[in-house]
Amino acid sequence: MSQHAPAVDHLFLRACRREPVERTPCWMMRQAGRYLPAYRAVRARASFLDLCHTPSLATEVTLQPIDEFGFDAAILFSDILITLPPMGLEVAFPEKGPVIANPVRTRADIDRLVVPDPVATMPFVMAAVREIRAALGGRVPLIGFAGAPFTLVTYAVEGGGSKEYAKTKALLFGDAPSAHALLGKMAALVADYLIAQIEAGAQAVQLFDSWAGVLSPADFDEYALRWAREVIARVKAHPAAAGVPVIYFANGCAPYLATYASSGADVLGVDWRVDLATVRAAVGDGVALQGNLDPGALYAPPEEIRRRVGKVLAQAGPVGHVFNLGHGVTPATDPEHVRAMVQAVRELSARSPA
Amino acid sequence: MSQHAPAVDHLFLRACRREPVERTPCWMMRQAGRYLPAYRAVRARASFLDLCHTPSLATEVTLQPIDEFGFDAAILFSDILITLPPMGLEVAFPEKGPVIANPVRTRADIDRLVVPDPVATMPFVMAAVREIRAALGGRVPLIGFAGAPFTLVTYAVEGGGSKEYAKTKALLFGDAPSAHALLGKMAALVADYLIAQIEAGAQAVQLFDSWAGVLSPADFDEYALRWAREVIARVKAHPAAAGVPVIYFANGCAPYLATYASSGADVLGVDWRVDLATVRAAVGDGVALQGNLDPGALYAPPEEIRRRVGKVLAQAGPVGHVFNLGHGVTPATDPEHVRAMVQAVRELSARSPA
Repeated sequence: MSQHAPAVDHLFLRACRREPVERTPCWMMRQAGRYLPAYRAVRARASFLDLCHTPSLATEVTLQPIDEFGFDAAILFSDILITLPPMGLEVAFPEKGPVIANPVRTRADIDRLVVPDPVATMPFVMAAVREIRAALGGRVPLIGFAGAPFTLVTYAVEGGGSKEYAKTKALLFGDAPSAHALLGKMAALVADYLIAQIEAGAQAVQLFDSWAGVLSPADFDEYALRWAREVIARVKAHPAAAGVPVIYFANGCAPYLATYASSGADVLGVDWRVDLATVRAAVGDGVALQGNLDPGALYAPPEEIRRRVGKVLAQAGPVGHVFNLGHGVTPATDPEHVRAMVQAVRELSARSPA
Repeated sequence: MSQHAPAVDHLFLRACRREPVERTPCWMMRQAGRYLPAYRAVRARASFLDLCHTPSLATEVTLQPIDEFGFDAAILFSDILITLPPMGLEVAFPEKGPVIANPVRTRADIDRLVVPDPVATMPFVMAAVREIRAALGGRVPLIGFAGAPFTLVTYAVEGGGSKEYAKTKALLFGDAPSAHALLGKMAALVADYLIAQIEAGAQAVQLFDSWAGVLSPADFDEYALRWAREVIARVKAHPAAAGVPVIYFANGCAPYLATYASSGADVLGVDWRVDLATVRAAVGDGVALQGNLDPGALYAPPEEIRRRVGKVLAQAGPVGHVFNLGHGVTPATDPEHVRAMVQAVRELSARSPA
């Protein structure tokens, strides 16, 4: 199994473990995506779901940004909503964003959802993990991922994206027991799913709580963090996960710094709206931090990108930092600006040997 | 002029000035809005812009929530984008959100924008302020408002609402001098406009920085706070504004608490994603705070609303607090839940006479 292989030399994994590194590793959320001409070329002949469901296509697009820019980690090409159909939810991915035809609205809807075996119901994911690992040939480690329970609940309840999260909040604040029943089902599947990815070869896993930031701090603790912690604890209790870093990314984390580090994750993802120095001061030295250049900074000219990369690196310090954007790269981004960012991270973070 | 009248007895104004109050005053962003059947009845016979442009209609809807719920302040019915057409931008308000037909894209576009006389170009606003003051008959004070420069720039540049603010960030990060030229024009008009509202009778004014929260802390300071501070300083330097509280509301303020209080405002608006106790600890005792119940809490049953109101009041403390939602009330809100919120604020914040 991959996790027993000598992976200690990977820069990304060492930074996740807060070990000394010769330079700061760098990857980018949504690095396999529409800003890349090579990705768009694949999408011209296959749908988004085709890519998720076909290991050879997932492998092709996962490797594109590694080949193009030399990122220090690859991330499985998939979607956080991929776990919903096996539970009984019908998800479609039109251009304007995901739509769920039978959203969860009643307690009966919640009770009807199944917690499936991820290997049996999503074999294409584990096959993709194996194929990507083989294609990478040890060049860089592979990150697996899943949606965090709260974020998955927002999609399941709203039936897609949302602006005000009215239905989610009506459930959370009006019927907390049912909300926790739903969150618990999501957590059980997500934990099993991440473990299955690790068993298939994922060398780190990230839990995406993309919409945690719509909650007050007390509600974040109760509905988002509590269940992320449950997932992380279950993953970490599994023998296959020994030495596999877990990353928890709550988008919009600034209000939650007092409790964020109690997630149990090895690495905390940080969006761009808060300074890494502020986060480090609040969460202490027990975790690594990942982030946090404003994706919008990539619209700036290369010299301004370099200046902003330097600021992020200076705030983060040399230990326990994985450079990333503070959110996914946007489709309108110029790939040459991504190259300028990667080059700036490499040059500005280079340290003389200890 | 209104600001010379003895307004010291208004609960809302006393709380803004951090004076002792017998209970915490309460109003609600978007309190004159679609959640109210009486408002929808007016909108059935007039467009949104008709309401903004017709003082008698603006007066009618401004007073509806005062009559219905007994809020402690009225707020002018208008829109933050109302200042854009006099500058030369063509704004429409379809149901799905505002659209600007000729957005600002080049330096020439910026240079072409005029900074008009607000009284000459928006006489309907000052007429509405006067008519609302007369209709209120001193029952509660009237709050005027404007969009903050940064937020107005996002609309002017994007041509409407946005998800990623790509064009705005390309301007800010790629051509800072032009960005500041545009922000400066917005600030000049907004300051004059708020002064004109005060001269017409507004007893407090709020500056809405609805989209400030999309910026990193350094960019917030440079592009949002800097220009909000400029507007507030200009307003406060005007004799008519003596004793008129200025409220600055940066939506998503949690990452910016280190500098938020330097805006110069008397009152800082606080969204629901951060605890008022955290904000108070960060900004000190020199300002009042306004907020911050999650608008989504109004989807909960009345007893849960009451519990959450109690938590907000406990965090805020008795001095220098104006109760409000942490963002505008949503159209789907049950008016009876608004009534439950107002009643809870009145009962739970009542203090024995000093």
